Amino acid sequence: MKCRKCGGTAVLELPRHNAAFCSADFQEFFRKQVAEAIRKHKMFTAEEPVLVAVSGGKDDTAGLYLDLGIFEYSVESKAKCESFAASRGQKLIVERVVDAVGAGIPEVQKATRRPTCSACGLSKRYLMNRAAVDHGFPVIATGHNLDDEAAVLFGNVLHWQTDALSRQAPALASTHPKLARRVKPLYRLSERETAAYAFLRGIDYIVDECPFAKGATSIAHKQILDRLEESSPGAKHNFLFGFLEKARTAFDSAEPVTLQQCAVCGQVTTGEICAFCKLIDQVKRRRA
Amino acid sequence: MKCRKCGGTAVLELPRHNAAFCSADFQEFFRKQVAEAIRKHKMFTAEEPVLVAVSGGKDDTAGLYLDLGIFEYSVESKAKCESFAASRGQKLIVERVVDAVGAGIPEVQKATRRPTCSACGLSKRYLMNRAAVDHGFPVIATGHNLDDEAAVLFGNVLHWQTDALSRQAPALASTHPKLARRVKPLYRLSERETAAYAFLRGIDYIVDECPFAKGATSIAHKQILDRLEESSPGAKHNFLFGFLEKARTAFDSAEPVTLQQCAVCGQVTTGEICAFCKLIDQVKRRRA
Repeated sequence: MKCRKCGGTAVLELPRHNAAFCSADFQEFFRKQVAEAIRKHKMFTAEEPVLVAVSGGKDDTAGLYLDLGIFEYSVESKAKCESFAASRGQKLIVERVVDAVGAGIPEVQKATRRPTCSACGLSKRYLMNRAAVDHGFPVIATGHNLDDEAAVLFGNVLHWQTDALSRQAPALASTHPKLARRVKPLYRLSERETAAYAFLRGIDYIVDECPFAKGATSIAHKQILDRLEESSPGAKHNFLFGFLEKARTAFDSAEPVTLQQCAVCGQVTTGEICAFCKLIDQVKRRRA
Repeated sequence: MKCRKCGGTAVLELPRHNAAFCSADFQEFFRKQVAEAIRKHKMFTAEEPVLVAVSGGKDDTAGLYLDLGIFEYSVESKAKCESFAASRGQKLIVERVVDAVGAGIPEVQKATRRPTCSACGLSKRYLMNRAAVDHGFPVIATGHNLDDEAAVLFGNVLHWQTDALSRQAPALASTHPKLARRVKPLYRLSERETAAYAFLRGIDYIVDECPFAKGATSIAHKQILDRLEESSPGAKHNFLFGFLEKARTAFDSAEPVTLQQCAVCGQVTTGEICAFCKLIDQVKRRRA
């Protein structure tokens, strides 16, 4: 197997691009895909401070770490982020769910009727935005990759959640002064490609999945998409990119959502009290 | 297991409706679903002559049979249709692909670069419409069921074929005097339910799949949807009905397609010469 670029020995085959690359040329390919994502969706300028949400996973390691309090999994992933940030002299902001809610995700899960990933996702979006606003970052970058985005799209399409479909994009604009922009610079790269990049760059990341991910619908959907990809390379790419290019705008709603400030915490919400404050209340009432 | 309606012994469980029925009450449920399909989408009135496209499969048995010339499969399915029509004193119109094209589907397949199901589907749509127009039927009913429709939707969504998505509906209006309306009265009923109905009514149908269906994408998509249905009853129903209720109109195109008559055969087409006449030409040139 030869590198498409230099003809040297390839270390990675990419069937969906009908290509193979050596280590150096794959890293260049990877960075070009990220640059293209940032350019195409005007994610941010070179001058703008970007808050990078990091999990200790392969996709990202610098900026804001959210400690979800999920046992050993959180301890280990936090250590990876701290060590990466320290080795590069980068600042790492740490926000703890237990400080904000009064309990970690395992206990939050028991207090709500939501699926675990739903309460956790809500908490992460809330804490990310609050950290960005508090620390003066206009934009938050998350590590969502092609597989993540395709799986979310798949779930939204199975139920035709038109609101969610209209909001699924590589870059989400700010629609309120207290709402940071959100961008996904890795959306053009697959899970396998981001893992390969981390490996080739010698970036230490947590390989384990979150212990709550077992049986999650998103994992089942990823497996279905993996099988489609196997029988037809490029299937995931075509599914996500076809949506973004040909269908997403069809779901733009006539009347945009009006955001206001939560009566309790002051962060943005569509209602009177935000979903995160309601979650905190649920956890408190269960404890009492 | 007890019948939800009469409390008698149930013969069939329908997890997606959280119900079970005895034979008589299932047949009533089945007919009500068909009646609801016809009513909801104004498929046809009691006075209108309906051309029913039949395949000898479980979904339908009376009206127009298309002989595709697929070996023993076509011989056997034609016999089922003839015997059903004869037993009910119904007229059966038979159209042969070999008469129209000069070759049956197996040879047509070799002459084109299209997947087999694509050339066959094109031929069926053409011959159905021609028969309806020639015999004075304003509307054609086909036996597409919930599983068929969900699988087609799945394929269209994977590639975001927006034109096809805008045309996917239980009832398609006529947009030209030489184009019959097309309706799918069984779209609310699953494959399993139509098979059960045929079995309980003692209708003899061909159980074998078309020999060309092996490895067809639509079969792979049906299997994926079957697995989703198994882990979450109602998944197929929600996928198809959610699309019809919440998303389909989003794909309505701004400018409707203009139909004209094919320069060769006079049937409706969007271009100068229709796809079926081009197919005939391909087959002829291959033979020469």
